[in-house]
Order: sequence, then C-alpha cells, then structure tokens
Amino acid sequence: MKLLRYGPPGQEKPGLLDSEGRIRDLSAHVADIAGAVLLPDGIAKLKAIDPASLPLVEGNPRLGPCVAGTGKMVCIGLNYSDHAAETGATVPPEPIIFMKATSAIVGPNDDIEIPRGSEKTDWEVELGVVIGKTAKYVSEGEAMDHVAGYCVVNDVSERAFQAERQGQWTKGKSADTFGPTGPWLVTPDEVEDPQKLPMWLEVNGHRYQNGSTATMVYGVRHLVSYLSQFMSLQPGDIISTGTPPGVGLGQKPQVYLKAGDVVTLGIEGLGSQRQNVIQG
Amino acid sequence: MKLLRYGPPGQEKPGLLDSEGRIRDLSAHVADIAGAVLLPDGIAKLKAIDPASLPLVEGNPRLGPCVAGTGKMVCIGLNYSDHAAETGATVPPEPIIFMKATSAIVGPNDDIEIPRGSEKTDWEVELGVVIGKTAKYVSEGEAMDHVAGYCVVNDVSERAFQAERQGQWTKGKSADTFGPTGPWLVTPDEVEDPQKLPMWLEVNGHRYQNGSTATMVYGVRHLVSYLSQFMSLQPGDIISTGTPPGVGLGQKPQVYLKAGDVVTLGIEGLGSQRQNVIQG
Repeated sequence: MKLLRYGPPGQEKPGLLDSEGRIRDLSAHVADIAGAVLLPDGIAKLKAIDPASLPLVEGNPRLGPCVAGTGKMVCIGLNYSDHAAETGATVPPEPIIFMKATSAIVGPNDDIEIPRGSEKTDWEVELGVVIGKTAKYVSEGEAMDHVAGYCVVNDVSERAFQAERQGQWTKGKSADTFGPTGPWLVTPDEVEDPQKLPMWLEVNGHRYQNGSTATMVYGVRHLVSYLSQFMSLQPGDIISTGTPPGVGLGQKPQVYLKAGDVVTLGIEGLGSQRQNVIQG
Repeated sequence: MKLLRYGPPGQEKPGLLDSEGRIRDLSAHVADIAGAVLLPDGIAKLKAIDPASLPLVEGNPRLGPCVAGTGKMVCIGLNYSDHAAETGATVPPEPIIFMKATSAIVGPNDDIEIPRGSEKTDWEVELGVVIGKTAKYVSEGEAMDHVAGYCVVNDVSERAFQAERQGQWTKGKSADTFGPTGPWLVTPDEVEDPQKLPMWLEVNGHRYQNGSTATMVYGVRHLVSYLSQFMSLQPGDIISTGTPPGVGLGQKPQVYLKAGDVVTLGIEGLGSQRQNVIQG
C-alpha cells in the first residue's frame, strides 16, 4: 500500500495510490496519515478497504509530505562507507545521529529554498523510515514491528552552516524546505528488502548519486533498535538513514545548488521527487 | 500572566495562575496553551479575561509542560562563560545549537527517568523562551515581538551519550523525561529583564547551580534573531538558552543523578520545579 497526502500546504487530505497510479481519497476513513493510523491496527484497517471503492481524485494535485504529525526527524550521519570517504570522514564505530527540524519537512515536489547567506546548499537522497508504533528499548528482533513504512527523503544540507559555523550539524540541516518527504509512505509488505534498494539523485539531469541501501553501514533494523535506547520513537517520527556517495561536497571541485536548478531523486519502489531550487 | 497546563499526561487542560497562586480553568476560552493562542492577539484575549471569572481548580493537580504543540526544542550550548570553563570548553564565537527531542518534554514535577545503561545523567537549569509568532530572518530589533513568554527548563543530559558515544549532542539530550518544562509560561510584561534573572538548582537540598541570566553570552534577543537565520521558529517552539556553572560534570569528583535523588530548580519570577529521579 502506498499512502500519501495531497492538497495545499497545511490542508492536505489523506489518500492512497491505486494499482493504476491514481490517487484515491481516504478522507471518509481517516482524518490524516498520522498518529494511530500508523499503528499496525490502523494500517490493517486501511488495507482492508477496496481502493476501487474510494473516490478518484481528479487532476494533478500537489503532494504533501507523506506522513503528518512527525514529532521528530532523526537523521543518521555518515552511514554509507563510501559517502564517509568522500567527505573525508571515517565510518563511525556506532551511528552518528542528528536532528532535522520538523519545520523543514515539505512535500516531495515543493521548491527548495536556498537560505539567505547560503553558498553551500547540498543534496542527499536518503531512505526514510516512518515509525508506526512507539519504540523504547526495543531489540533488533522486535525493531521491524515498529516500522509503518518507507519513503524517499532529500536531506538538504547547508555545508557551511553545518560544519563551519560552530558545532552541531542541526544548524545546517533545518532550514525551511530542507526536508522533502514522499511521495508515498510505502508499507513494508511492498518492500521486499529495505537493504537492497537502488537510489539515485540528479541535478539538472546530471546523475550525481547512484547508490543502494545495500551499502548502508547500520541497517534499518539496527537503527530502530539503537535509537530507541536513547529516545522513544513515536508514530509518525521519521528516521532518515543517511546518504550514499555523490553529494555536492564530494565533487572536485565542489558543486552546490543555485536558484533555477532542478533536483530529481528516487528510490526503487518508493517513487521519485522533483524540486525546483529558488532563492529564499 | 502565568499560563499553565494541568491534569494527567496527554489530557492537560489550559489554566492560569491567579494573583493568589491558585489555578483557574481556561478551558471555556481556549482548547490548549498552544499554536494561535500564543500569538500576540491570542495572548491579548487571555489578558482581557478577569481571572476571578474563571472556575477555580480544586486540589493540587499535576502540572504538564506549560506549552503544548512544541514542534522543536532548540538548545544553546556553552552559553554561560563560566559553564564553558567548567566543562573544559571555550566560549564559542557564535551560538552552538542542538536539538532535544520533543518527546523528552514533561511536566515540571514529573519524575526524571535515568535511561538504561546510563551512568552520567546530569542536570542543567535553563531559561526557556517560548515562541509566540513565526520568526524567519528576523532582526534583533524585531526579535522580542516573537516571544510569547519564558519558563524554567531542566535540560537533563546524559554526558556519556552526549560526548562519548559518537558525535552530536542530541544523543545525550533526548531521553524521555529529559525536558521538564514549566511550571508556567510567564508573559514578557511580568519579566522586567530576561537578562537579569537569578536561577538555581539543588540535588537533595545541596545547591549546585547558583547563577543568573546576566552572565549569558548570547542573550534572548540575539538568539531569536540568530536562530531564525537557520530555521523558522514557530508558535510553541522552545529555545532553551544554556546553563550557568554547577552541573554534575563540572564537580570534582563528578556527581551524577541516581534513583532516589530529588532535583529542585527555579528561576526568579518563573517558578520552580521538583523532580524525583527514578531508574528507567
């Protein structure tokens, strides 16, 4: 099942994608793709609905972030060995975690705003993991029971804010529009193995990232369990699991986004995103 | 005006403290102390109400966090020169910021849970600044118009998770119960100068922290403006502005919290907190 949210920012309605790629309206069944709807029971109820019985959504509406009510977006740093190498870092002996402000989350095809004063706005295609059931001190064996599904995330990053403006990466990760999320929340039954997903990102049609979740250092199962030792994970929380090589910082010379650029990215089975870059 | 939230966790009702220190129920006027209620207009409407006209709340209910709908809790690191010194760090040339997971936020007198595997759970009394109106690229001159009020925050911190378990402080700041917030949201008209507030913290009656916001390196006005260059601040967001000297990490030998300890802390004019420490 591919769940989504469509409509103007802040007024999104819940929907799902039917087998022919059309949007069906879920408003009569749930208020939003959030909270208790993400619990195993909530997902099971949605799965029991025949998509053909749902109103077809006409036209081509904007898509919002595929999940609402996200209390926190936890990101994993340097989680692909070859990405760590390109940034001049070594693979950490346990996961590096940082936060992206939830106010940065936008729809998958919304504009990316370059923050005022930025000269190093960069891209990162990432596998997003959406929590379905509260996780606190869970083992690796239990971890996957807490996952509602997967989505594409662009972990947009301002490298100077992140690394040259005094400590803690969150400073370069949290500008408005720095978290395109979606198009869909894809439930685990449609993702055969989250550690074997090809992923890619292009800027103006040039392919910069061409990787696979197969080269992730710490996989989804480990990350859910690991994070739950340090904080509780709640329904709607998103873990963005790190990026493969090919970010702008890793190019020689370095390449950063500028107004007018077009960023496209995707993960196999999870859909794709397209962002126009504008000056904020 | 002193706004508050009272009742069981997750079911808090909005209230205010009257001039005799009694809780008055605001439920008939607002759904919660959150969102649009924190806008200048929303605060003005509450101020226009005669507290004597509000139902008196009997008994001694639990207090919740004094604000709801907090999208992010941004904390400032090493923002008191003498605290920086005690941790062996120098004062940063611009603010260090990190995030505390909003799932860590609890009421001012709720228990502090020591996370499993923790040996270095520490305390930090801090001035919390609650945002009232969205702030994005605001100047220092405009900054204070975006502040709904002030509160006490205990920025509970696990020092090993924060500093010895691979980068990014958020890992040691985000456990459940690590963000006692309140008792009240005190509006700016009752706070003559946020940079002249005595503050203190005791563990089992021994005073460890005894400071004042007067020794803050980067003041409230600067912090609101500064942060708004890197991310938008939304109504209900909280900035926790750093701690004065006297944390457990700074003692010789170091002192950390253990089950059975009692932590009390307060800031002049903003009330006090009391937490029992339990094993999580």
